Amino acid sequence: MAATKHFHRELEKIKKMILSIGAAVEDRVHLIGKAIESVDDKPAEKIIHDDHEIDEMEVEVEEECLKVLALHQPVAADLRFIIAVIKINNDLERIGDQAVNIAQRIKIMAKQDHHDFVFDYSPMVEKVEFMLKRSLDALVNMDIDLALKVCQLDDEVDDIKNEAYDQIKKAMKRSSDCLGYLINLLLISRHLERLADHTTNIAEEVIYMIEGEIVRHGKNLP
Amino acid sequence: MAATKHFHRELEKIKKMILSIGAAVEDRVHLIGKAIESVDDKPAEKIIHDDHEIDEMEVEVEEECLKVLALHQPVAADLRFIIAVIKINNDLERIGDQAVNIAQRIKIMAKQDHHDFVFDYSPMVEKVEFMLKRSLDALVNMDIDLALKVCQLDDEVDDIKNEAYDQIKKAMKRSSDCLGYLINLLLISRHLERLADHTTNIAEEVIYMIEGEIVRHGKNLP
Repeated sequence: MAATKHFHRELEKIKKMILSIGAAVEDRVHLIGKAIESVDDKPAEKIIHDDHEIDEMEVEVEEECLKVLALHQPVAADLRFIIAVIKINNDLERIGDQAVNIAQRIKIMAKQDHHDFVFDYSPMVEKVEFMLKRSLDALVNMDIDLALKVCQLDDEVDDIKNEAYDQIKKAMKRSSDCLGYLINLLLISRHLERLADHTTNIAEEVIYMIEGEIVRHGKNLP
Repeated sequence: MAATKHFHRELEKIKKMILSIGAAVEDRVHLIGKAIESVDDKPAEKIIHDDHEIDEMEVEVEEECLKVLALHQPVAADLRFIIAVIKINNDLERIGDQAVNIAQRIKIMAKQDHHDFVFDYSPMVEKVEFMLKRSLDALVNMDIDLALKVCQLDDEVDDIKNEAYDQIKKAMKRSSDCLGYLINLLLISRHLERLADHTTNIAEEVIYMIEGEIVRHGKNLP
């Protein structure tokens, strides 16, 4: 029953919908990069205010997937694709939540003492943006190599996180009067790490879907 | 086709499987509580070593769900239940990952200077354990009131996290020579917060499944 023209139109619609929530989440990540750079509560406020849009898109994608499962009862690769979309959709919504968490932190930081210490998170944000974009490209193009590349980048994000830890810890020793600001600055690296984790989850889901192989838990691909 | 005896046996099997991974994850959370209390790398090592068991159980649950979807093509409430299990299964595996993250942190802390400062995380761990257990009870008993209670507890976990922040920040001012240890102690509160978030996700998924209502994004239940 699954292999009808109508069913394929539905699959295309789901692909478009997941790319659409993906694009909205990419915008948030880009904006959060600007907000971190400037420690500005204007873009932070916008991210918090607009989060309901992502939440609504998530619900629409999941409802559409459930509708297609119930109406067309797909099997094999098509079934796996729809289950992958449901899980990826969930990760995208949580990336949106993380952007909100960072935005709330920035709003607090904008009011805190910080002397002149800065840590430049822009390379970390750029990497996360790159990973997010590529993981979604990998999904719609069924590109396993691209998905594998995304997984590899996770280590580079961890390296920047460790660099942030070292530098901010040193700054804490020097400037114990702005500990509050520095702790928040440190915690931003942990939120960005979680963003990267979610993009890695998306890429792993794509690989799992394509290969039917479990790379999520350390098995090697053939 | 879905309402056969065989199908209902399959649903019971899936329920048993999700409870089984749930119980394994509960064990990890309990053990991580002990490891935090004693800053002992023995239980930490065990959690890291045994994580593959959770990973394997997650894969088995998902494969079983996909099998049942393909063979029995359930609709309506049964379809929603299986999709909920797939997502909850994913959250359980990530709780396991968080336990590993905390365990790795404890292994580092066991080697760091820390004077005599302690923060008692046991009430926070107990709350998370309670939330995890109740969210799974809510799933198998389709108990919406219990699921709602779990969601409410998330605020109490946040309160303890904020208390940890205040106390540890003060300790940092006093003892700048054990900043490394104190930063790790602070980050444990963030991991525990994430554990609580995952249990809240499970409870919200249960509510969503039962009510067909979207509480995940702030809508009120009737």
